[in-house]
Amino acid sequence: MSVREQTLHSLYGNMVEWRRHLHRHPELSFLEYRTSAMIADLLEEWGLEVRRGVAGTGVVAKLTGGMPGRAIALRADIDALPIHDAKDCSYRSSVPGVMHACGHDGHTAQLLAVARYYSLHREETAGTRVFLFQPGEEVLPGGAIRMIEDGALDGVDAIYGVHLWSPLPYGMAATRPGPFMATPDEFEIQISGRGGHGGLPHESMDALVTGASLVVALQTIVSRNVNPLDSAVLSIGQFASGTANNVIAESCRLSGTVRSFNKEMRDVVRRRMEEMVRHTCEMYGCGYEFRYFEGYPTVVNDEREAQRVLRIIAEQLPETAAGPCERIMAGEDFSYYLERKPGCFFFVGAGNAEGTSAPHHHPAFDLDERAMLHAARLLIAIADDSAADKG
Amino acid sequence: MSVREQTLHSLYGNMVEWRRHLHRHPELSFLEYRTSAMIADLLEEWGLEVRRGVAGTGVVAKLTGGMPGRAIALRADIDALPIHDAKDCSYRSSVPGVMHACGHDGHTAQLLAVARYYSLHREETAGTRVFLFQPGEEVLPGGAIRMIEDGALDGVDAIYGVHLWSPLPYGMAATRPGPFMATPDEFEIQISGRGGHGGLPHESMDALVTGASLVVALQTIVSRNVNPLDSAVLSIGQFASGTANNVIAESCRLSGTVRSFNKEMRDVVRRRMEEMVRHTCEMYGCGYEFRYFEGYPTVVNDEREAQRVLRIIAEQLPETAAGPCERIMAGEDFSYYLERKPGCFFFVGAGNAEGTSAPHHHPAFDLDERAMLHAARLLIAIADDSAADKG
Amino acid sequence: MSVREQTLHSLYGNMVEWRRHLHRHPELSFLEYRTSAMIADLLEEWGLEVRRGVAGTGVVAKLTGGMPGRAIALRADIDALPIHDAKDCSYRSSVPGVMHACGHDGHTAQLLAVARYYSLHREETAGTRVFLFQPGEEVLPGGAIRMIEDGALDGVDAIYGVHLWSPLPYGMAATRPGPFMATPDEFEIQISGRGGHGGLPHESMDALVTGASLVVALQTIVSRNVNPLDSAVLSIGQFASGTANNVIAESCRLSGTVRSFNKEMRDVVRRRMEEMVRHTCEMYGCGYEFRYFEGYPTVVNDEREAQRVLRIIAEQLPETAAGPCERIMAGEDFSYYLERKPGCFFFVGAGNAEGTSAPHHHPAFDLDERAMLHAARLLIAIADDSAADKG
Amino acid sequence: MSVREQTLHSLYGNMVEWRRHLHRHPELSFLEYRTSAMIADLLEEWGLEVRRGVAGTGVVAKLTGGMPGRAIALRADIDALPIHDAKDCSYRSSVPGVMHACGHDGHTAQLLAVARYYSLHREETAGTRVFLFQPGEEVLPGGAIRMIEDGALDGVDAIYGVHLWSPLPYGMAATRPGPFMATPDEFEIQISGRGGHGGLPHESMDALVTGASLVVALQTIVSRNVNPLDSAVLSIGQFASGTANNVIAESCRLSGTVRSFNKEMRDVVRRRMEEMVRHTCEMYGCGYEFRYFEGYPTVVNDEREAQRVLRIIAEQLPETAAGPCERIMAGEDFSYYLERKPGCFFFVGAGNAEGTSAPHHHPAFDLDERAMLHAARLLIAIADDSAADKG
Repeated sequence: MSVREQTLHSLYGNMVEWRRHLHRHPELSFLEYRTSAMIADLLEEWGLEVRRGVAGTGVVAKLTGGMPGRAIALRADIDALPIHDAKDCSYRSSVPGVMHACGHDGHTAQLLAVARYYSLHREETAGTRVFLFQPGEEVLPGGAIRMIEDGALDGVDAIYGVHLWSPLPYGMAATRPGPFMATPDEFEIQISGRGGHGGLPHESMDALVTGASLVVALQTIVSRNVNPLDSAVLSIGQFASGTANNVIAESCRLSGTVRSFNKEMRDVVRRRMEEMVRHTCEMYGCGYEFRYFEGYPTVVNDEREAQRVLRIIAEQLPETAAGPCERIMAGEDFSYYLERKPGCFFFVGAGNAEGTSAPHHHPAFDLDERAMLHAARLLIAIADDSAADKG
Repeated sequence: MSVREQTLHSLYGNMVEWRRHLHRHPELSFLEYRTSAMIADLLEEWGLEVRRGVAGTGVVAKLTGGMPGRAIALRADIDALPIHDAKDCSYRSSVPGVMHACGHDGHTAQLLAVARYYSLHREETAGTRVFLFQPGEEVLPGGAIRMIEDGALDGVDAIYGVHLWSPLPYGMAATRPGPFMATPDEFEIQISGRGGHGGLPHESMDALVTGASLVVALQTIVSRNVNPLDSAVLSIGQFASGTANNVIAESCRLSGTVRSFNKEMRDVVRRRMEEMVRHTCEMYGCGYEFRYFEGYPTVVNDEREAQRVLRIIAEQLPETAAGPCERIMAGEDFSYYLERKPGCFFFVGAGNAEGTSAPHHHPAFDLDERAMLHAARLLIAIADDSAADKG
Repeated sequence: MSVREQTLHSLYGNMVEWRRHLHRHPELSFLEYRTSAMIADLLEEWGLEVRRGVAGTGVVAKLTGGMPGRAIALRADIDALPIHDAKDCSYRSSVPGVMHACGHDGHTAQLLAVARYYSLHREETAGTRVFLFQPGEEVLPGGAIRMIEDGALDGVDAIYGVHLWSPLPYGMAATRPGPFMATPDEFEIQISGRGGHGGLPHESMDALVTGASLVVALQTIVSRNVNPLDSAVLSIGQFASGTANNVIAESCRLSGTVRSFNKEMRDVVRRRMEEMVRHTCEMYGCGYEFRYFEGYPTVVNDEREAQRVLRIIAEQLPETAAGPCERIMAGEDFSYYLERKPGCFFFVGAGNAEGTSAPHHHPAFDLDERAMLHAARLLIAIADDSAADKG
Repeated sequence: MSVREQTLHSLYGNMVEWRRHLHRHPELSFLEYRTSAMIADLLEEWGLEVRRGVAGTGVVAKLTGGMPGRAIALRADIDALPIHDAKDCSYRSSVPGVMHACGHDGHTAQLLAVARYYSLHREETAGTRVFLFQPGEEVLPGGAIRMIEDGALDGVDAIYGVHLWSPLPYGMAATRPGPFMATPDEFEIQISGRGGHGGLPHESMDALVTGASLVVALQTIVSRNVNPLDSAVLSIGQFASGTANNVIAESCRLSGTVRSFNKEMRDVVRRRMEEMVRHTCEMYGCGYEFRYFEGYPTVVNDEREAQRVLRIIAEQLPETAAGPCERIMAGEDFSYYLERKPGCFFFVGAGNAEGTSAPHHHPAFDLDERAMLHAARLLIAIADDSAADKG
């Protein structure tokens, strides 16, 4: 094991500690005040050039190596989700209804370790490293676009990001050139009926029954209107209607997400939703308001950078599957960085057979923490390779 | 106009004032602290024998007339509903999300006026009058049963109650012998799915779609399983599912009411609900909990007392429709009093063309306040007639 | 037992024989050629004055009694249904897909017996008897209206009809003054989508899914829009869509029946159907044609005649329940006769515990044949009582 | 233009004539008696060695060239569909309800032309040509497997087939190595309720409402249970329920198709269908029978043969898109040949802007007939190239 590898391994205990601390103290999107302060304090302590308050609660830090080379940005997202932690473990979330159910705690911890690593090997580092700790990846319009507006990509030559991924077993990593992650749109539907006594339905317009009928009807968009050889998902995440058991609901509020990989499919889904909302509500004598929010662009990896990442994965994790992986349905605002700079987003396997099998965004979600070491190792190898690239 | 009638008319301004005060300051079931204090203070001021704290926040007051006769109980319910007042008027509710949307403010005001009337005509009153100001009519198990347990009917010979009714035009009153108002059962359904990422539906069990499918399926109970010549209503009043737009809902909670007029229909609805909840949840891979709460018994008016009330309505409000009215689908815990004492529950028309046409339990509900005068006049005439009854 | 009663009893074997013959050889509405010929041949053989071909395949026969009195019409309907007989018995229908599943075979047999009875007791019969054997009661616009146009009621003073009724136990009979049987409307909905390859749903407009969604949506009319204290039924009797497993259905045809007891409820159902058909079809990109056929009027029994029938039922079947029965949801074109002449339609119990419990229009439907004797006895007693009526 | 090309062009008039004749006289699967006779008669007339009655109504013909080479099989399918021709043209189907709505008439005509071509150029042909005119491609288990059992592939070195494809514009051709066409399973669901009078729903179990609810529920399999990055289609092609408007349906029959590209997705769909059929039927008190028929295997093109075909397409139709095409959702029993012999199935564009835009299996389906010339030219070039292949 080289000196550099020894350095990284010696940081594993810190990664776990940082990650568990963050897991215990999760913060919702754009409210990552304590998370952000902890990150910035550590980076300053290690001697990096730190900007706080980027995109509100984000942090950007820079480290200039002792040798010439390109400027390579590495990004972690730092926000948690409005989910109630259902695990029973020492690092369970202490905030009711808020939880790191997507692994951003791990992303933050591993990027901190990478920064610490470079601070210990500054002299032998070629080029510059820019560390982006981004807030608000989980809610539209996302923190990435504001990071960019605040200059986070200024002077950067290439950018890389990683997601710890529990459906992928520990030991693996994956990415693909071209379209990799979906466009995640969101929508809100507000239905207005006429309330009334629960025993006198014929004098009311039941907004709850209207909403339920709409949920059922919307299932036909994917089953009948989406090209089965293309991909789209429509998930209604929330349904709230009614205020009392014996009062017919005056209104109903639905909201959710639509995922697709191109404009055509998005437009089919959006148009069909508009038609179904309108006709279902009118059919039941209700009014409505339909709002559709176009989400992050598709994550499209640069062809050449994706090949670089695949090559380095093959070197570093020789047991992983060769070749490009499948597209995935989740979205990421990393796409904004990739619209502006060459780069690549990739996944590191964080699932294992001993129980970290709950899907992302699930109340029982957890990581195989050793994956953070893989992620950090890959980020360093990719950054060093890319920094030395003469093009 | 007789002296007595003059007395009553002179109290109309007070009724309106009391009713509007209560409308401005509504209190939810069993939390009618200020309402109850106001009632008891007034009754004591007028010299009645007052018991506070009956059934928690109820009041029972007694007035012994100067002449012999039977003991006649008159009852008003005093609680408000968890509905947000949508009216724009001087006496709009000042409590967000709480509202007198069923007219109990009027019931209270008019029974106060009746009590005041008797306090001014005590000497010429035959028999005793017992005034029941009952809390919690709107939520199971209702305040009536606790009023009875607390002795509210002790020594009472007959009992009468009235509901101001906006679907009935001002000027009318109505009742019928036998079954008059429905049995209002309630239910709660808790569905447990498996949450997950909104873009990966195949890894989750979508509790929200399961709940919506159940709402749609439950419509077939009334349309297919209820004898069309009998009557039953199943209304789902509340549906809550999901915590975030891009998270598939882990659980779903439905609750609502079932109305019927006999055990057979109730049993059909309850059994079919059980079957549908079970099979729908199992079909979508979800668990469930189904709880069914049997509500107030059917309001069954005493044959002879209902004829008395119909006769007095015909005398006092000669323009009203003759003969018994239809049954109605609403429930009332007045049924508990009628299971123990002869008596009759009746409706007084409180709707008019100038806008008090919103149904009961509607955010825009209001009364034609003049109806309180009708109600008070009828209560007095009925009580006097019944007190003098030799059987 | 009187001589007259002995006559009637002696005809029981014939009734069974005729009924079983008709059961074995059922004929669809307005195609009752052999049935009609058998009826007319028998009546002529017995010396009645017979008109064939009334209303197409109907028969009217007249018998003038030896004594003075009024002209009393008695009516039987003679058509069968497009149902496949699922019974296993000697008199099972020999015509695939056609069956006497409503008891019209019994109606015909018992009225033949009544005619035979009068032909044997002509001299002691007061007034005239007119026997109406009516075709096509099961399909709109029904045979009654054409019978009337063809003069079947000319000179008639009062009319009576009976339905053998399997939900009513053998030994009972029932009727009520005023509204007795429902208005049975019918409807047809033709949905036009766009066909296509079963594997390419996004290129088609699936008329079958549209039709199924409509069936589900229509359930909410009774569950949400019909006053639960009034009565209405909407049953979709037929659904046909698609021509091949791997071809998406180009069209879908639905048809069915709506039952109600007054214009208000009918209008609510019809209007809501129109709205739902329109919006559901437009929502799924389909065209449609909606046709609604207003059915027979409500059967409204004459007050005085119903009292006569209830009195005679009480005399003849002393074990039957006293007083008027409930309304029933089935329709009958006997209503047309009652719009023109005083009269009464009544039910005779034909169910028993030994297996004749299948509902009317069910493939396993059967009668307790002894009910025919009750029906015949009641018809004779009613006719004789009414013929002798001086008003 | 070479002599050979002149020969082919001179046959275009015949192709159109044969195709239109077949279009006018379509025959359903395995009933292609006249079609088959016409084919065999022509082939014999041209001197080929003809076997009639292969796989029932199929024809296999052999032509041995004047020069050495491999044995190359070329296949056409010859059956029509149970669809009613909605076109208005001279060659409209003369058989009500039967139509060449998939282009098999063109397949037959163009392969006849190829056979005629080789009969005119026998001496300069290398190797053998085997012509497979296969019956029953449209219905499971398909004619291919029986053709193979009857020896159609004996001695064959490679096999090629073509589908005229209207979604692909005239001038193009397409194929891909590996999985190309879907597995088309079929299913039948028989629901047994309890019939009864349309006005008395509470006495019946409505099989039609049960079936409609099932259709709606089944939509959630693709929308919720199928991996959005994989592909599956579930189309219900037929729904038949009910025999009369005023009779509640005793039974309901649904049938349709499931398309997928691998065993995993097929198994998900099949298992979810079983669960939904069971729970929906039990929920509505109905019995059921569910039959699932596994369809043709996925069409998997040989890697090397597909590259050959792509190369020849690029040479012959230089304007066509380069590179492999997308997978398609339709199925083909050509897969059975490819499980046994190297080969490739490909598409030739037959759509154009002037109206042949209706999808396959649509009542208005038609072809751009010039596509037959492309198909014939490609088949000859491929066969000659492959016959000369030394491996």
